[in-house]
Amino acid sequence: MLNRRFHTPGTAPATLVAPTGAMVAPPTITLIEYDADSFTERHISNVDELLACHNNGKVSWVNIDGLGDVAALQRIGQHFGLHPLALEDVLNTGQRPKVEEYTDHFFIVSQMLWCEDGRSVSYEQVSMFLKADVLITIQEEPLQDVFEPVRARLRAGRGFARSRGHDYLAYALLDAVADHYFPVLERVGETIESMEERLLQKPGPELINELHALKRTLLQMRRCAWPERDVLSTLARDVTGLIHEETRVFIRDCYDHVVQIMDVIESYRDMTTGMMELYLSSVSTRTNEIMRVLTVVSATFIPLTFLAGIYGMNFEYMPELKQPHGYFVLLGIMGTLFLSMVAFFRSKRWI
Amino acid sequence: MLNRRFHTPGTAPATLVAPTGAMVAPPTITLIEYDADSFTERHISNVDELLACHNNGKVSWVNIDGLGDVAALQRIGQHFGLHPLALEDVLNTGQRPKVEEYTDHFFIVSQMLWCEDGRSVSYEQVSMFLKADVLITIQEEPLQDVFEPVRARLRAGRGFARSRGHDYLAYALLDAVADHYFPVLERVGETIESMEERLLQKPGPELINELHALKRTLLQMRRCAWPERDVLSTLARDVTGLIHEETRVFIRDCYDHVVQIMDVIESYRDMTTGMMELYLSSVSTRTNEIMRVLTVVSATFIPLTFLAGIYGMNFEYMPELKQPHGYFVLLGIMGTLFLSMVAFFRSKRWI
Amino acid sequence: MLNRRFHTPGTAPATLVAPTGAMVAPPTITLIEYDADSFTERHISNVDELLACHNNGKVSWVNIDGLGDVAALQRIGQHFGLHPLALEDVLNTGQRPKVEEYTDHFFIVSQMLWCEDGRSVSYEQVSMFLKADVLITIQEEPLQDVFEPVRARLRAGRGFARSRGHDYLAYALLDAVADHYFPVLERVGETIESMEERLLQKPGPELINELHALKRTLLQMRRCAWPERDVLSTLARDVTGLIHEETRVFIRDCYDHVVQIMDVIESYRDMTTGMMELYLSSVSTRTNEIMRVLTVVSATFIPLTFLAGIYGMNFEYMPELKQPHGYFVLLGIMGTLFLSMVAFFRSKRWI
Amino acid sequence: MLNRRFHTPGTAPATLVAPTGAMVAPPTITLIEYDADSFTERHISNVDELLACHNNGKVSWVNIDGLGDVAALQRIGQHFGLHPLALEDVLNTGQRPKVEEYTDHFFIVSQMLWCEDGRSVSYEQVSMFLKADVLITIQEEPLQDVFEPVRARLRAGRGFARSRGHDYLAYALLDAVADHYFPVLERVGETIESMEERLLQKPGPELINELHALKRTLLQMRRCAWPERDVLSTLARDVTGLIHEETRVFIRDCYDHVVQIMDVIESYRDMTTGMMELYLSSVSTRTNEIMRVLTVVSATFIPLTFLAGIYGMNFEYMPELKQPHGYFVLLGIMGTLFLSMVAFFRSKRWI
Amino acid sequence: MLNRRFHTPGTAPATLVAPTGAMVAPPTITLIEYDADSFTERHISNVDELLACHNNGKVSWVNIDGLGDVAALQRIGQHFGLHPLALEDVLNTGQRPKVEEYTDHFFIVSQMLWCEDGRSVSYEQVSMFLKADVLITIQEEPLQDVFEPVRARLRAGRGFARSRGHDYLAYALLDAVADHYFPVLERVGETIESMEERLLQKPGPELINELHALKRTLLQMRRCAWPERDVLSTLARDVTGLIHEETRVFIRDCYDHVVQIMDVIESYRDMTTGMMELYLSSVSTRTNEIMRVLTVVSATFIPLTFLAGIYGMNFEYMPELKQPHGYFVLLGIMGTLFLSMVAFFRSKRWI
Repeated sequence: MLNRRFHTPGTAPATLVAPTGAMVAPPTITLIEYDADSFTERHISNVDELLACHNNGKVSWVNIDGLGDVAALQRIGQHFGLHPLALEDVLNTGQRPKVEEYTDHFFIVSQMLWCEDGRSVSYEQVSMFLKADVLITIQEEPLQDVFEPVRARLRAGRGFARSRGHDYLAYALLDAVADHYFPVLERVGETIESMEERLLQKPGPELINELHALKRTLLQMRRCAWPERDVLSTLARDVTGLIHEETRVFIRDCYDHVVQIMDVIESYRDMTTGMMELYLSSVSTRTNEIMRVLTVVSATFIPLTFLAGIYGMNFEYMPELKQPHGYFVLLGIMGTLFLSMVAFFRSKRWI
Repeated sequence: MLNRRFHTPGTAPATLVAPTGAMVAPPTITLIEYDADSFTERHISNVDELLACHNNGKVSWVNIDGLGDVAALQRIGQHFGLHPLALEDVLNTGQRPKVEEYTDHFFIVSQMLWCEDGRSVSYEQVSMFLKADVLITIQEEPLQDVFEPVRARLRAGRGFARSRGHDYLAYALLDAVADHYFPVLERVGETIESMEERLLQKPGPELINELHALKRTLLQMRRCAWPERDVLSTLARDVTGLIHEETRVFIRDCYDHVVQIMDVIESYRDMTTGMMELYLSSVSTRTNEIMRVLTVVSATFIPLTFLAGIYGMNFEYMPELKQPHGYFVLLGIMGTLFLSMVAFFRSKRWI
Repeated sequence: MLNRRFHTPGTAPATLVAPTGAMVAPPTITLIEYDADSFTERHISNVDELLACHNNGKVSWVNIDGLGDVAALQRIGQHFGLHPLALEDVLNTGQRPKVEEYTDHFFIVSQMLWCEDGRSVSYEQVSMFLKADVLITIQEEPLQDVFEPVRARLRAGRGFARSRGHDYLAYALLDAVADHYFPVLERVGETIESMEERLLQKPGPELINELHALKRTLLQMRRCAWPERDVLSTLARDVTGLIHEETRVFIRDCYDHVVQIMDVIESYRDMTTGMMELYLSSVSTRTNEIMRVLTVVSATFIPLTFLAGIYGMNFEYMPELKQPHGYFVLLGIMGTLFLSMVAFFRSKRWI
Repeated sequence: MLNRRFHTPGTAPATLVAPTGAMVAPPTITLIEYDADSFTERHISNVDELLACHNNGKVSWVNIDGLGDVAALQRIGQHFGLHPLALEDVLNTGQRPKVEEYTDHFFIVSQMLWCEDGRSVSYEQVSMFLKADVLITIQEEPLQDVFEPVRARLRAGRGFARSRGHDYLAYALLDAVADHYFPVLERVGETIESMEERLLQKPGPELINELHALKRTLLQMRRCAWPERDVLSTLARDVTGLIHEETRVFIRDCYDHVVQIMDVIESYRDMTTGMMELYLSSVSTRTNEIMRVLTVVSATFIPLTFLAGIYGMNFEYMPELKQPHGYFVLLGIMGTLFLSMVAFFRSKRWI
Repeated sequence: MLNRRFHTPGTAPATLVAPTGAMVAPPTITLIEYDADSFTERHISNVDELLACHNNGKVSWVNIDGLGDVAALQRIGQHFGLHPLALEDVLNTGQRPKVEEYTDHFFIVSQMLWCEDGRSVSYEQVSMFLKADVLITIQEEPLQDVFEPVRARLRAGRGFARSRGHDYLAYALLDAVADHYFPVLERVGETIESMEERLLQKPGPELINELHALKRTLLQMRRCAWPERDVLSTLARDVTGLIHEETRVFIRDCYDHVVQIMDVIESYRDMTTGMMELYLSSVSTRTNEIMRVLTVVSATFIPLTFLAGIYGMNFEYMPELKQPHGYFVLLGIMGTLFLSMVAFFRSKRWI
């Protein structure tokens, strides 16, 4: 339900265990190296090949897809000097976004999100290790990927990307993750708009179930976006020197986007709360209206029916029945009663 | 619904794209230059003419209306050394108000608002670049404008305006934006007052829909005013030297106005919440009252009708029917029953 | 409704305009001068006379009542070197309480309040300018005045007042303003108590309207008291030297009073919220009880009436009608049905 | 209602007035002096005797019960150099707990509480003056006293008390005050538990009134405990030297108790809120259930009664009445109708 | 109810009293000593034996189970120089998690929790004393134990544990406590999921009681987890030197787990709130639906029954009864009335 794989109690800290659903297959590794003049992109078939690569002064980005092969990740971790606790968090997917500062690298966790059917949202954890000479990104599954636009920009040499370092690349990827909130928010916004319309026209209980589901979706999005904000503000205030001064203005811009995302999520939450209130008040109002009809009809006709019942009795001696005008007198009484009831209800504004 | 144009994921940072609804037309550019003694106002037909203007030691204010011509904006940006990320925010209208400090200029985003029909509120983004030798303001559309009173004061040479620098001009424009909240708040206040009156007199479901719409309007206004506060307090605490000491007291005054605006918005929000509560409790109360009438009438007459029904049966042998006083005895019983029901309901204060 | 006169957009900063309701009459000016040994109180007929007064080393307090004569205020402002923005706030009554530090004076705004009918609360703005050699107070109307006890103490030479400076006088006046909350709170407290009693005895819809009005009154009081707290804490932490060390302990005491006022207001707000809840739950409970009576009576008698209706039909061949004991058998059946219904409802604890 | 005696506006600061209910009798004064080896306890008949006592290097604790004799308090205040504003707060009982630092002494206000009937809570103000050579405590009434256990420990020489200074004694008394919250909380907890049980079994409107009273009691306790926390944290961070280093660890421990008290109070508040919700939802549920019975019975029998009414009419020409099997055909139709209604309601899960 | 044993007022600070339910039996003591090369584990039969042990340069961990024998604890406390206030907190179980810094040791309180039936949660207090040369842990009962996995790791020499000092051991134990939240949260999550399903299918009042119980459980868990966070952040920022630099990264990791726990608890709380809302709105909706059926049936048939009642009266002179087609005309009228009622209700979307 919560897409969270809980930590198993009793395991030693920094124990690496593959997440339950992960395919036991070697990860898909891509190595991209570039500087202002050159760009190479290699698919690397096994870990040994990766470890054999030498740093050649270029910006190098290792992207790893798939968490099933723990041993491979462990070797990569040892080779690049990644902290074992960080690697544990890579495998315990469903983490809150966070940034950890280790002796010579940053460890950054983010959550990408997708909205396939305009209703429920899926999450995938992206882990990043930012070192002075390499950027390593690790994703859960090879299928989904938000980094393609960044790769395309690098290939094409457009924008600032090629002329900057690892820190700018990390920013570009975090920005790509943050930007993926916008289409999701857009779809959620459309859903809210259509629900609001239905709420004003024909509110029904199934709407409330949808509203409930929507609130949970927003709750989850908020749980992801809120700590993302802290991640970016920590990076923008970096004192380690891994993030260059000129990159920080970009990170602050990305931070601004996340603030805007939070802002929209909060508005959506306020709106769903307002819709719930609106629903409840409209149900109360309609119940009131229904009761009014029932009361007006019942309270008018029940006494009249009683009168009719009286004169439907079969007593041998009921003088009124013998009166030649008894029937019409009674009808007159009934009419008067009816009209005075109507007047009473009108005075109360019930009809 | 939210008047927000979301950022498209996958675009490079600082990519300039015109907002979707914008007219593809060259922007309307006005250049105002003044000092204590002189004032000139020129309408500039194209960008080249603007770029050819030389700084002549006066305060110069470039106002640009219309976001459709991206290339023109890009040239202006390059000429004046505006940061590309800031230009991107100029075009991504619907930003939260904010201030960004770049190496030699402030970038300020605000939202002007209008209330044309006393109900829904419209927004227009105003972006400002405050440099030591020029102030550039960029608006979405040429139609609406809140700066006219400032221009009029400059032309007339009234107030402090002509004798002060770019920072005072920026303040005067921000103050004009903030002051535009007041008439909107006044109209919203009138709407609230009239709704409250209707609520106390004849509450109906359409009132709730209006209340819901009002809450959303207030939510949006709050989303605009809240960050405006931060903008002004950042400017008032400026350390770059772009804002002079004597201007800060004016900015603090404007900050005070925004605090007051927030205060009124919060009060309005509390009031709408109170009205919603009032509505719900009044519906409950009326339902209760309606039920009471129904119950009193039904519970009184249904047993009597049953008695009448008994003696309306056609059994051949029903001894009571033969009694000469049977009818009157029954009427007496019915009357007693009726009166005791009335007494019971009165004891419960239902009638 | 909100007693707020909004700022008119488009006016230059520091433009002085008399508030809409103010009488266009010269202000009533009183000059009080005292030191430990002497006390003089003069009513000053026009502004020139005031400006002609020389500082004679005593504590001098200028009290001005009435905001209708803008020109007079402007001259006074120029004479004493008051900041034009501060003068604008004097005239824009309905300000939040605040303190502004200008180069050589403090500008303090407070709101006095009255509760004439134990229900609605009226506000009057008091503005103070605290300089090293004079204290100027400006009130909206000459009619109401909370400063009389302070004057009386000064005349009588009681307390510390005569032996202290302008700062102590300012404190004494702010304390008089804060103390005026207490009787208002006391009356509001009595209103709450009596409403609570009525709520427990005979809750009705008019009570809810009163409760709603009360909540608004508390909201307004809170809006005034909350910033008053900030005013006093700013003065208590003063670094300009205008407030002497020995006066600060008094200001802290006054701050304590305002904290206590806020505390009581918050309690009252919690109580009104609790009363609203209590009302709603009591309405629900009573509706439930009413429904129970209706249901018990209807569900018992409607089936019996149906049975009576069956044997009131006029079919030619209805064998039961011919049975000599048919009537009594039916009565027996009806009695059994009735008793089992009663038993059923008793088992459900509905009767 | 709020047990608060409000400050009278117009009185000079530091005016001493006895609280309204106080007996006009000389206060009961007790002087306790001790060091590690000795302990003396004297009842002092009048103020002169107290003022004649000389400091003999021991820890001396003056306890004063009764606020009726203002002149006596004033003399004591002058003798010991207590600040007049502090003395005013001693007499204005119903203060928020607070600590004030004067030049050579701390002034501490606390509220003791009792719960006599397990429902409502009573408060008594305790004021303390902590000087380097004396501790003065002033209580409202001689009857109640929470300090007896401390005295007993001092007499017996148990614990650390006799070997420490005035600051430890002040701590011990504050700790005694804080500890008195626990039995009150225990009783409130029992009340909550029993109310919860009744709520699950037989919820009634009187329960809601009790719940409302309980919420108010908790509100008051919270208003007392919350500032007590600040008092203790201020003392624990003392920089004046009046509180010794080794006493601070005890004060922090007492602070911890108050945090725990706040924690329990907050839990109780959450529980009462939850109970209110539970009550409202159970009333809604029961109303729903009652309505279901009413609807099932009415909607089943009303159409059948109508059919019986049709054939109870006395038209001369009604062909069905003549049919030999008319009655049984109608009974069959009625049975079918009845069963289909039952099936309908069962399909809706109403029976 | 709250599992809290309150402090008895009147006892001296640092008075040691066994908790009420504790067995009066000597505690079970285990001494584990290890370094990178060796590991010994001894069960110690009485306190004297423990006190006779000498520090041999290894990491030594004393685990004590059972709080019934106060004298033994007191002797241990004196031997190891533990602060009496800390020992008092060991015995006053039900403390909030906290860390206290004493001159040469940390005192840490945590709460372990279990969820045996997937519904209610049990707590046990664990107290730790972290000194430079020993770690002492004290548990309430010998039965439950979360430390076994840590012991197993130490025995096996796996992980970092054997090569690190007392601070790492303390971390490992705190981590074991924190990790025990996860299975409890998992079970609570399953309960929530199944309740949500039942809520959407067949909501009933017993669900609300369960929901209420669940909210209380979450409230308690939150009360335990929240201060645990502060404990860990205090330890991670330690300045005493008891916590080594390399251990802090592990403590920060544990802190992260607790933040994640809080995050999940908050989500669960939001969900239960949402479910309560959902329940209330679904009850309102169903009441509305029931009322609609009742109203449609009653309002349709009551007037028709009245008409039938009219012509069931026995007046001697009722002209309509003699009409040959009277019956069919009336049936026609009734049919028309019926259809127009149906049309009316359809127009209102009630059927």
